[in-house]
Amino acid sequence: MPRVGKQTWVFSSEPRIVATGTVAGLVESEGPFGADFDVRCRDEACKTTWEKMEQDQFTQAVQVVLQKGSVTANDIDLVLGGDLNAQLTGFYFSHRDFAIPALGLFSACATFTEALAVAGLAIDSGVAHRVLAGTSSHFSTAERHFRFPTEYGAQKPPTAQRTVTGAGVALVGETGGNVAITHATIGEIKDYGITSPWEMGAAMAPAAESTIVAHLSDTGRTLRDYDCVATGDLGRIGHAILKDLFEQRGLPMDTDLTDCGMMIFRPDQTEVFSGGSGAACSSLVTLAHFVKKLEQGEWRRVLVAATGALLSAVTAQQKETIPAICHAIVLERKDG
Amino acid sequence: MPRVGKQTWVFSSEPRIVATGTVAGLVESEGPFGADFDVRCRDEACKTTWEKMEQDQFTQAVQVVLQKGSVTANDIDLVLGGDLNAQLTGFYFSHRDFAIPALGLFSACATFTEALAVAGLAIDSGVAHRVLAGTSSHFSTAERHFRFPTEYGAQKPPTAQRTVTGAGVALVGETGGNVAITHATIGEIKDYGITSPWEMGAAMAPAAESTIVAHLSDTGRTLRDYDCVATGDLGRIGHAILKDLFEQRGLPMDTDLTDCGMMIFRPDQTEVFSGGSGAACSSLVTLAHFVKKLEQGEWRRVLVAATGALLSAVTAQQKETIPAICHAIVLERKDG
Repeated sequence: MPRVGKQTWVFSSEPRIVATGTVAGLVESEGPFGADFDVRCRDEACKTTWEKMEQDQFTQAVQVVLQKGSVTANDIDLVLGGDLNAQLTGFYFSHRDFAIPALGLFSACATFTEALAVAGLAIDSGVAHRVLAGTSSHFSTAERHFRFPTEYGAQKPPTAQRTVTGAGVALVGETGGNVAITHATIGEIKDYGITSPWEMGAAMAPAAESTIVAHLSDTGRTLRDYDCVATGDLGRIGHAILKDLFEQRGLPMDTDLTDCGMMIFRPDQTEVFSGGSGAACSSLVTLAHFVKKLEQGEWRRVLVAATGALLSAVTAQQKETIPAICHAIVLERKDG
Repeated sequence: MPRVGKQTWVFSSEPRIVATGTVAGLVESEGPFGADFDVRCRDEACKTTWEKMEQDQFTQAVQVVLQKGSVTANDIDLVLGGDLNAQLTGFYFSHRDFAIPALGLFSACATFTEALAVAGLAIDSGVAHRVLAGTSSHFSTAERHFRFPTEYGAQKPPTAQRTVTGAGVALVGETGGNVAITHATIGEIKDYGITSPWEMGAAMAPAAESTIVAHLSDTGRTLRDYDCVATGDLGRIGHAILKDLFEQRGLPMDTDLTDCGMMIFRPDQTEVFSGGSGAACSSLVTLAHFVKKLEQGEWRRVLVAATGALLSAVTAQQKETIPAICHAIVLERKDG
């Protein structure tokens, strides 16, 4: 059965995460997973433009994953991904030197799980044998797109999140490695009326709740069936709200319920506020940390529920509320 | 076999275009297909914001297609689509009142065929029974995003294209109606070094060539196998370039090779320059015109190769070149 319930796709061929490519910025490299990233950028000085730096990191992550997967661009049937820049220029510019059929996707910081969901579908249905799925984000391109010019030195409230600099790309294939994508739960758009771009965790928490609850209902599972349930990047404040929402539902939470935005930085790092965000937040934590935990056999199964705040500079200036979405995927260790 | 060649997906279940919903702006309603659109906007005076007008048109197109398809939002398993606004706010804001799993897609003006391709895959693989696939664009939101503020009254060269105002949404299902999506050819990113945002037809023509040639090679067909081969929105200038490129290849062109951007406006309409563009250009022409020609049995088979120019205001200001992409889908009349 390719789908259970209303929102959850089941990949019976169990597509594998064959290889991972991760490139991380300076602050990310100084965080808890610094040693786990394939490439650590030693400085953030801008040599050309912030946008070019982000594109270069995305390209580098693709090169790393191709190398680690012992394949070339010619072996790839499809590339899926996106970023936070207007018109997905991070994704499209960084992939223009690879002759691979490309589909751009966007659900803000939920783009990585959207890409893994479509990658799973492409492999499972047989239209592709090998797919790249990845996302990038960059602190300074996001500041330019979503907030005040950096030069203003505008102060941020503690509810703000720091956009992650980096790129994470997965090579998804029919065989290879022992980590499979078994399910994807596609989220609905939720808008609870938050208008402040400094409150993205609050805007996204109901979307995370909706998708995770749908996933459990569709699959007949509980949170306890996962070694770890990680939201995309709610940050500390959105995470606390999600826990409240789960408690109100009487959902037993005796599992490792965490958040990629909380994990990627140490709380004592400078100016990380409520935690990380950005399209690369969930791709970096998933590929550098969760996949490793599964590969090493420390975990059996993880639910990654990346969350996206669907605002733009224009909608923020027009005082619109912030819709949000969350797409979840299940990664599972397979023996053999 | 779910794929032929490197780039072409084959949908053996032949998903159907069950119903169409089209909403067109004032200039579009005065064009050749004026009578074919479901909703014709009588004025373009801005009541709230341009962005809100675009969202309302997208929402209206969804409402129309649900009504014409005799279904409610509850019957829809997945909605796919996008628009030209930064961070896809046209798509996400217009769909937030529908509780439907949603995946945002972006390949600029190729987004509609990208959405139909993924819709075909979702139906064919069984993860969805009914999918909405649609795009919107709006002259004034695109001017704000990509060009000078309208109030400047900046003059445009004759190579410029006019962004189409409107929205087109298809209801794609397993059965219903006699128009099927049989193939999708996923394009690669092509960048031939064009830098002027007034030369989008020239930037996109090589992408159209690449995808159409790949489609013919993958399927073993010729242009003659189609009653009509329509690019997305190259406009008159890009279309002439594409014909040159085909001639250089010695490709026999004794077929109806045309372009949605050339078709949607009459050449004598005011300020339409080289023709229409925008994510709604190919969705409106496909759903209001091509699907009707097939439904009425006048045509048997059409290839729609929508093209997207992958620039943003930031990349244009940074003097970057303009990458382009083209995704093609085959629509075919089925008797019974």
